[in-house]
Amino acid sequence: MFVLGVDPGLTRCGYCVLRVSRHKTEAVALGVLRTDPASPVPVRLAELWADIRQLLNEFSPQAVAIERVLFQTNVRTAMSVAQASGIVMAEAASRGMAVVEYSPNQVKDAVAGYGGADKEQVQQMVQVLLKLDAPPRPADAADAAAIALTHVAFTAGLQFAAVRGAST
Amino acid sequence: MFVLGVDPGLTRCGYCVLRVSRHKTEAVALGVLRTDPASPVPVRLAELWADIRQLLNEFSPQAVAIERVLFQTNVRTAMSVAQASGIVMAEAASRGMAVVEYSPNQVKDAVAGYGGADKEQVQQMVQVLLKLDAPPRPADAADAAAIALTHVAFTAGLQFAAVRGAST
Repeated sequence: MFVLGVDPGLTRCGYCVLRVSRHKTEAVALGVLRTDPASPVPVRLAELWADIRQLLNEFSPQAVAIERVLFQTNVRTAMSVAQASGIVMAEAASRGMAVVEYSPNQVKDAVAGYGGADKEQVQQMVQVLLKLDAPPRPADAADAAAIALTHVAFTAGLQFAAVRGAST
Repeated sequence: MFVLGVDPGLTRCGYCVLRVSRHKTEAVALGVLRTDPASPVPVRLAELWADIRQLLNEFSPQAVAIERVLFQTNVRTAMSVAQASGIVMAEAASRGMAVVEYSPNQVKDAVAGYGGADKEQVQQMVQVLLKLDAPPRPADAADAAAIALTHVAFTAGLQFAAVRGAST
């Protein structure tokens, strides 16, 4: 089973595809979709949309987990994040895929064991859980991996905090 | 030539298709696309997207004019408006259609003659300009018509204020 995690954004949209089996969860695709800030917004949205379609075509994930868009200080950024998330959700839902939103605190709680975890702690846990040589870069890719892992945790009733305890 | 005007929204998305010829501008489609607030957001976005595709398939507008999403007091509403606008812009841009955003003040200025016009004045001008028996209802449809008329005005260098002066 594949799960796609998305950290929505227009300049950088993080993505992570996890292959989840009974005994193993591994990242089979991890990275960032970028669009040129100098291009008009509608063109950038269309480009992001094409990239998302390609990811969904390639992996046909059973579920798409996406970070819930919250109010941000920078309204312009919040708007473009909302536009990007709308495209991902609409495309996945039209294909009949499950789309689940998680708040930043849910992600921190599921992956690092408590809602107050900082970004570095989350990234280190992503590295540990996916057995990577280093935390994924850029940060948006790591965030997308954390969101996908959150979905796996919620679905399986896993407690990654216990895993963390075992690894430290 | 057809112009599609869109007042983006998830619960009610206003639309208006104008047929623009050298001597006449008329509304050939005018209404509201609705989604059920009780459904999950991704499903609603997918439904809106299907409706937008159908409109674009039917009329192949040369341009899509859409109200620019500004900060609103209700953050949740602003987010869903941004998500809806993202879908419309991405779909139109993927088809190579021109997508133009107009601010509420630009619309008031173009249609009613000044940026401080109230909603009723804009709706009355829509009625006059499109020779309708009454202002379009619901208001979202009238707003979409105003946005489409704004694009016509900007494109043609028209001054609807002068038309208003002549008609009163």
